[in-house]
Amino acid sequence: MVHVYNTKVRMKDGRVGELICGNGHKTDFSAPPEFKGNAGVFTAEDALVASVNMSIMQTFLHLTEKKNIKVRAYEADANGILGHRKGNECIIRIVVHPKITVDPGTDIDIIELCLNEARKYSIIANSIHATLVVEHKMETYKA
Amino acid sequence: MVHVYNTKVRMKDGRVGELICGNGHKTDFSAPPEFKGNAGVFTAEDALVASVNMSIMQTFLHLTEKKNIKVRAYEADANGILGHRKGNECIIRIVVHPKITVDPGTDIDIIELCLNEARKYSIIANSIHATLVVEHKMETYKA
Repeated sequence: MVHVYNTKVRMKDGRVGELICGNGHKTDFSAPPEFKGNAGVFTAEDALVASVNMSIMQTFLHLTEKKNIKVRAYEADANGILGHRKGNECIIRIVVHPKITVDPGTDIDIIELCLNEARKYSIIANSIHATLVVEHKMETYKA
Repeated sequence: MVHVYNTKVRMKDGRVGELICGNGHKTDFSAPPEFKGNAGVFTAEDALVASVNMSIMQTFLHLTEKKNIKVRAYEADANGILGHRKGNECIIRIVVHPKITVDPGTDIDIIELCLNEARKYSIIANSIHATLVVEHKMETYKA
């Protein structure tokens, strides 16, 4: 089966637009403030970095679920750095910092394997040119 | 000056997470329904397609503004198609369909030049592997 992801954008008021996503999410967006856009709204640059960050988390949780590993908490900061590639501006590097909390006694090697596989099999990680680095921290759950 | 785009994700309830973007946008997300996620929320796949769609629009509006061309309306559907690249699942093709409304007498060649340049210089278009196709329609504004 072919999966297709659809989004719609529409100019609203000057450089502010409306975004309607195929899975139901709607929001306003603009350019980032440094490119004459507005603060407080979504941007294309945030969306690209967010897509990688969300995809790594979802792929990791899918893999740990398949191995019956309980993940107590997962959070991650991701930074996308603007640079040049073949003379054009683009996001050249994305660094994701997951912080993962698991139960005492959990096999840490399996968690690290799942993170490596999440980076390897994430649909979005495989859709971008940027160098992708995943640097994680692990914590043990305290009730 | 180096521009860095930051986003944060956090596991909330099972496979639903919270996304907090550097420019202020917040929303819930999950995997798409076909990958055991929830309908009605944002997804990584929608975010990638949206980032291209938003970036083409913002770059086009920036270019037309620089040339003092009045754009009366802009809307665009974008479809991202899931496929395989080097054996891994990824978004292999994104097709953007802008519909642009301009005043009668506007130089259509300049509009087409701006669209071609938007496709060429869009930060996000230059950050992805997918084949990107932009197929536009033009309309004349009727008061």
